[in-house]
Amino acid sequence: MDKWLTSLKTNTPQEGFELAIKLSQMGVQYTQPSEAIRNRLRPKYSRNANSLINVSQVIAINFHTVAAANDYWK
Amino acid sequence: MDKWLTSLKTNTPQEGFELAIKLSQMGVQYTQPSEAIRNRLRPKYSRNANSLINVSQVIAINFHTVAAANDYWK
Amino acid sequence: MDKWLTSLKTNTPQEGFELAIKLSQMGVQYTQPSEAIRNRLRPKYSRNANSLINVSQVIAINFHTVAAANDYWK
Amino acid sequence: MDKWLTSLKTNTPQEGFELAIKLSQMGVQYTQPSEAIRNRLRPKYSRNANSLINVSQVIAINFHTVAAANDYWK
Amino acid sequence: MDKWLTSLKTNTPQEGFELAIKLSQMGVQYTQPSEAIRNRLRPKYSRNANSLINVSQVIAINFHTVAAANDYWK
Amino acid sequence: MDKWLTSLKTNTPQEGFELAIKLSQMGVQYTQPSEAIRNRLRPKYSRNANSLINVSQVIAINFHTVAAANDYWK
Repeated sequence: MDKWLTSLKTNTPQEGFELAIKLSQMGVQYTQPSEAIRNRLRPKYSRNANSLINVSQVIAINFHTVAAANDYWK
Repeated sequence: MDKWLTSLKTNTPQEGFELAIKLSQMGVQYTQPSEAIRNRLRPKYSRNANSLINVSQVIAINFHTVAAANDYWK
Repeated sequence: MDKWLTSLKTNTPQEGFELAIKLSQMGVQYTQPSEAIRNRLRPKYSRNANSLINVSQVIAINFHTVAAANDYWK
Repeated sequence: MDKWLTSLKTNTPQEGFELAIKLSQMGVQYTQPSEAIRNRLRPKYSRNANSLINVSQVIAINFHTVAAANDYWK
Repeated sequence: MDKWLTSLKTNTPQEGFELAIKLSQMGVQYTQPSEAIRNRLRPKYSRNANSLINVSQVIAINFHTVAAANDYWK
Repeated sequence: MDKWLTSLKTNTPQEGFELAIKLSQMGVQYTQPSEAIRNRLRPKYSRNANSLINVSQVIAINFHTVAAANDYWK
């Protein structure tokens, strides 16, 4: 796979949150590399409350890692 | 997206908990940007015990991050 | 919302565990503010083993935060 | 509730694991105080693989807290 | 129960991962002590993708604890 | 099992993420050693949004461990 992650450092907490989203998406992408299949799944999970809550949980876990890497932007 | 997160610092633990709720909601909002769709989902998950427990779990994970960022308001 | 959380400090680990329960409940309460609806859900999830296990998981995550805030009551 | 948790310190990692089990059970017990109801649920979840895996997850989270409290018994 | 856990220290990360698997299994074993019942459950969950993913999650949580106990084998 | 994990150190965060994927897969592989069975399960979970989200969650937990082991590649 191409380079997509060179650092966990971000300038702001918001950029860190967006990096956490990227990490969450990449966990899916490595497991299902086909963009066509992922796109077919999107309408369903993005309209399902429980799926969205679970996505938010994965983001939360990754955000914890990114925040720690940035010393919580103290 | 507009700026919505400039710091993980809060004055009190309660404000930190409320920031954790905001982070949990934003994880959903980035994944489903349509406010109309999110509003349609709300009546269902907010009356489902298991969904509410899962929401509380995402908040708990984000609260851990926010609490660490504030040195637990020691 | 009224003030309900002014500190993560507790005198004993048990009080810390009970604070973790409170935090878990508040995650639900912020998401479903209606006490009437929450009371209707209670008989169901409190008699469902998987729901109870999930509640215990949320408490465990919050307890980790509270324990760290108290330096594990060392 | 009576005193049931006065310290997170244990003599050995195994006692720490057993304390993590106790914490996981207490999360359930605070939520469903009726011993009769809990006993009725037990035969079902203790014979369901997914429930058992979830129980093991709650124990793992609590064990992390207990291990940290004991400085990993180093 | 007999002694099965005297230390979280391992010589290598791989042995640490295998200890994490042991901890995950013991979480199940304490909850369902009957080996006969556990053996009956195995064919089902070990052929169910979602169960296997959940098992891997419990191992991941325990591995985090074991890795921290070993200072990440630095 | 053959040696597959000698260090949690990686040169870059991306290699660390890929190690987290490997750890997540190995959690499954230890539990279901048959490659034939795992291959039969793959088409199903890799086309199921909720399964993919759960896989991404396991990766996130393992990535947290790997990132800590590398001092977040600071």
